[in-house]
Parts: sequence; structure tokens; C-alpha cells
Amino acid sequence: MNTQDVANDLVTLCKQGKFAEAGEKYWADDVVSVEAGAPGGGDPVSRGKDAARGKGEWWEANHEVHGVEVEGPYVNGDKFVVRFKMDMTPKESGQRVTMDETGLYTIRDGKIAEERFFYGG
Amino acid sequence: MNTQDVANDLVTLCKQGKFAEAGEKYWADDVVSVEAGAPGGGDPVSRGKDAARGKGEWWEANHEVHGVEVEGPYVNGDKFVVRFKMDMTPKESGQRVTMDETGLYTIRDGKIAEERFFYGG
Repeated sequence: MNTQDVANDLVTLCKQGKFAEAGEKYWADDVVSVEAGAPGGGDPVSRGKDAARGKGEWWEANHEVHGVEVEGPYVNGDKFVVRFKMDMTPKESGQRVTMDETGLYTIRDGKIAEERFFYGG
Repeated sequence: MNTQDVANDLVTLCKQGKFAEAGEKYWADDVVSVEAGAPGGGDPVSRGKDAARGKGEWWEANHEVHGVEVEGPYVNGDKFVVRFKMDMTPKESGQRVTMDETGLYTIRDGKIAEERFFYGG
């Protein structure tokens, strides 16, 4: 699969809310997942499929998602961008918010070698 | 200036329509500027400030811009993302369109080391 194929399928899965499945299917074993920041000054970089999966599970356990809009993918070379608008409530605060997120994916051998997330909106 | 400072100032200039000024101020001498594609199978990669400037001048000469919305910046590490929605008419086609573009900037020593553009919307 080339970058466009991976991008299209990943976005299709995300539009169905299948974020965990998308990760399992496309994360490389040594995927690097980079957040903009981490709570309590932790490391914003997760290395490896297990760490990426763990981050996803933590996220899912701590947020209630009411709806997601997914735009993209927009491809350039071995990279593509996806935009997410997520209507959700963090369980800790209980305050419903809209999160605007851009995901930047770098593909190598048909797998996600790096994913990097940008927040704001 | 750190990445956030450069990002903020670049977005301020872009919101004022000062794209050329933003480039002059922040492109590194050896900036790499990567389009998603190039007309006629040309090279989508421009290397160096002169090439980046030339691309901007070509673009400006060949498009009439009616309005631009700029969203961002969204920072992660040494990179940031800016989203542009441009209401414009390519002079060749004469057909007014809205172009949705995401710019990904990589900053080194307070300058743009790489800029990469993703199109769609």
C-alpha cells in the first residue's frame, strides 16, 4: 500500500470511530508517537506499538466522546495530515469541550513510523 | 526566538496578507519547501531561499487572492501547523475557488528549515 492508500483507509476507520483498530492495523512495531505536551512534565514521546496502544487506552478510559468529525487525508510525499474535531468530556473535569487536533503521519513500508499531534482551534 | 514565538509572528504576518514578508523574515538560507505535487511532473521540492521566494512570486503573479483565513499556529516541539483557507482565482482558469491548505513548518535556530504543504478540504 502506498501512502495515499494507508491514509484513505486510516481516515475511513477513524470516521467510523475505530481509532484503536486503525492503530493496530497501521502502527509500525517501533512507531514513535509525539504529543505536544504531557501531563506533569512527563515525556510527550511514546516509543513502540505497546506504548502507543497504552496511550490510546488511557485516553479512552478518561474521556467520554460525544462525536468526532474527521477531515482529510491530505497527502504530501510520505506524510499526510488528518484533522479531527472531537466533541468530548474529560472525566476529570466533567466539562464538555471541543478539541481541534491535527495529526501528522509519516509512513514507511505501509506502516505509521511516526505520528505527531497538534492541538488548538 | 523559540518555536512558539516564530509561529506566532509568522501567523500574525500571514493574517495581514504579508506572505512574502513572512518568508523573507523566517526562511533559513537553505530552507527546503515541499509541495504535494508540481505541474507537469516537475520537482515538488524547492531548495534555498531564492527558490522559495521565486515560487512565491510565481504564485502571486498567477493568482488573484480575494481573501484568506488563517488558523493556528499549533505547536509540537520544533514543528508547528498553520491552516489556510484561501478564496482565490487562478488566472489561467479564471474560476474562483476556495483552497484549503495546511502548512507544516520545522524551525531550527529561529528560522524555517523546512515547510511542507498539504492540500484538500
